[in-house]
Amino acid sequence: MALVVQKYGGTSVGTTDRIAAVAGRLIAARERGDRIVAVVSAMGDVTDELLAKALAISADPPEREMDMLLATGEQVTIALLAMAIHAQGHEAISFTGAQAGIVSDGSHTKARIQEVRADRVMEALDHGLIAIVAGFQALTPEGDITTLGRGGSDTTAVAVAAGLAADVCEIYTDVDGVFTADPRIEPDARMLDTISYEEMLEMAATGARVLQLRSVEFARNHGVVIHVRSSFTDSPGTLVKEADGSMEQAIISGVTHDTSEAKVTIRDVPDRPGVAAEVFGRLAADNVNVDMIIQNVSEEGMTDISFTTPKEDLVRARRAVAEVTEALGARSYSVDESVAKVSLVGAGMKTHPGVAALMFRTLADAGVNLDMISTSSIRISCVIDAAQVKTAVHALHGAFGLAEGRVTAETSPGAPDGGSL
Amino acid sequence: MALVVQKYGGTSVGTTDRIAAVAGRLIAARERGDRIVAVVSAMGDVTDELLAKALAISADPPEREMDMLLATGEQVTIALLAMAIHAQGHEAISFTGAQAGIVSDGSHTKARIQEVRADRVMEALDHGLIAIVAGFQALTPEGDITTLGRGGSDTTAVAVAAGLAADVCEIYTDVDGVFTADPRIEPDARMLDTISYEEMLEMAATGARVLQLRSVEFARNHGVVIHVRSSFTDSPGTLVKEADGSMEQAIISGVTHDTSEAKVTIRDVPDRPGVAAEVFGRLAADNVNVDMIIQNVSEEGMTDISFTTPKEDLVRARRAVAEVTEALGARSYSVDESVAKVSLVGAGMKTHPGVAALMFRTLADAGVNLDMISTSSIRISCVIDAAQVKTAVHALHGAFGLAEGRVTAETSPGAPDGGSL
Repeated sequence: MALVVQKYGGTSVGTTDRIAAVAGRLIAARERGDRIVAVVSAMGDVTDELLAKALAISADPPEREMDMLLATGEQVTIALLAMAIHAQGHEAISFTGAQAGIVSDGSHTKARIQEVRADRVMEALDHGLIAIVAGFQALTPEGDITTLGRGGSDTTAVAVAAGLAADVCEIYTDVDGVFTADPRIEPDARMLDTISYEEMLEMAATGARVLQLRSVEFARNHGVVIHVRSSFTDSPGTLVKEADGSMEQAIISGVTHDTSEAKVTIRDVPDRPGVAAEVFGRLAADNVNVDMIIQNVSEEGMTDISFTTPKEDLVRARRAVAEVTEALGARSYSVDESVAKVSLVGAGMKTHPGVAALMFRTLADAGVNLDMISTSSIRISCVIDAAQVKTAVHALHGAFGLAEGRVTAETSPGAPDGGSL
Repeated sequence: MALVVQKYGGTSVGTTDRIAAVAGRLIAARERGDRIVAVVSAMGDVTDELLAKALAISADPPEREMDMLLATGEQVTIALLAMAIHAQGHEAISFTGAQAGIVSDGSHTKARIQEVRADRVMEALDHGLIAIVAGFQALTPEGDITTLGRGGSDTTAVAVAAGLAADVCEIYTDVDGVFTADPRIEPDARMLDTISYEEMLEMAATGARVLQLRSVEFARNHGVVIHVRSSFTDSPGTLVKEADGSMEQAIISGVTHDTSEAKVTIRDVPDRPGVAAEVFGRLAADNVNVDMIIQNVSEEGMTDISFTTPKEDLVRARRAVAEVTEALGARSYSVDESVAKVSLVGAGMKTHPGVAALMFRTLADAGVNLDMISTSSIRISCVIDAAQVKTAVHALHGAFGLAEGRVTAETSPGAPDGGSL
């Protein structure tokens, strides 16, 4: 008898009919003998409707009150889902985040879970009930309602699974699993059977939208096995778990892309100590997120500094950069919004040289120019022209043989030009 | 510096514009120097919309989950109202029933408040904030969300006022105050400046819809002064409080009417001990509420038993009465849905004889036949033909001089035929 957490997103519970269908799935799982916890999001567009009401009242509503407002969305779903299960002749009980013992810090609208006191949920399971938990929401130790940011229901599901020492956390979504590339861009994209936390983190951080980044971090830190599955098909899905000997020794697991960032360049900055600290200290103070940073080699005491930032931070970024450009006596700054980041992710990179070289050659052969490059031990990212995303993803997917199965140590592409990462 | 609780109902907060208007009223009160707590209901039709969703899923949803669902309505309002106050440059903080420390028993959908632990609300007031509390909802000691039944926000407001030892509990509604009769029926109806708890309880119990009965009971038990006011006009409204020497010595405060009940009669019941206990025990077991009861004098060992019951209980009542008629060997039973109850309420009745006689004579002169009569120490109620409600209310309102001001001891109508109540 396994203990299974199943998470259903807003699309899966978008109508009362779909809620009844989810109830049916939960009941089927319960009847197989497992102990079942459901974590659910707000119905379809409910969160957006609540946001619209708030914005009709205030252009800048207090975040504590936004959380008070938005938390009602999931509370409606859990109540309706419990009713649907009862209507189908089974027993269920719903819990708000607070009732489920999900404790967070006080960072309203983007709170972080600190602890899960799952006693009430466990008690419900012990009584044979299907337990239903509101995703996305938590309570501070002071008793204030918080929300975990968009996609936070994934994190709730993983945290509840950790708190209950569940056997698996099934995340039901509108795709079949985790793919070697975005299937909407790459027709040859192949679904992965398994992927390590480490790789999934890099993929989520570089554009794969299937799981919220923080939910994967939480899963890794607490050893929760995530099973990504479709709520509409019977696809076997993808397991996200600790890398172990039973996994293929893959060099590359996938190609990701991200067009949500812009590139900012400050030209001819006087190259003296503390300049970078001044630029990025100012950006941090203005709450501008920075992803990749490149500083050119100094020429004649001057240097160029480039960085990428989410487009949604761009208004604040422009203001900060304009001031810092003047304060430092730099020549000018420019913003390029038509950039994209293409990344190769694979745990095997650590031990197999030549991946970077093949990546750069492949992109060069496809006529794709590289603007910026950054790397981690299991990822290489390149900033390119946004118009060339599809070309780049397709070329890389083909060159690394991702469609046929993972490139393994035995079929390694080697290091064509003898270079190493 | 007074501590004032203001309660606004669903109509008053029905749109985001109206919420902004309520915010303005609260701010104005705060700027006069008072400490302000707002208690609010769900926006307009929100509760009905939530009910419709539940019924789309289940014909008989579990009551615990209904409460989980319905409680979201007020939570939306408190968040939006707090935002509206901030948008107008003042500080506010919202509290769910749970956060406001409103503790109830576990009777889901009709819970009773047991205790108010108002520490958090008081702390907010100490910081100069306007405190906003969700009406209608509470938390059990076990941590389950409950609701207090339709109109429960009035009770929340009074309970919060009691918990904070507030100076006054202002109930804002869509009428100007408490009237000597329903102004929609009686054009000469006059607004009362003050009314005692005792009288208000009788008026609420016999058809006056301005305050929920339980809120008045709670106010009386805890000595909370209620001020009924209009949220749309500047009418001075009506104070509901303990009778004291400063009040007029009124004999009659008002005429009420109620067309929500039906009359059931069981004919030729064998008159032996325990018959009434059997009839009404069975009705109670089937959860049928009974208001007035009349048992005729026995003739030849047979008697008739009549009672009134809310029309909404009539399906259960018919079933129970049919069975009990057969079980007792009574001749037949009948149901009359076209009845109305007209009541005179006045604390002065206790000490002034002749009120009942004048009431019966007035109705007789107006051609109104009496079906049933029942009395309390400060109320006389008659069941009449529903078609004659307006005639009866108008005749009584005139005969007792309610339009001109209360009939006082000095202007007592006396006892025309020497009878007493």
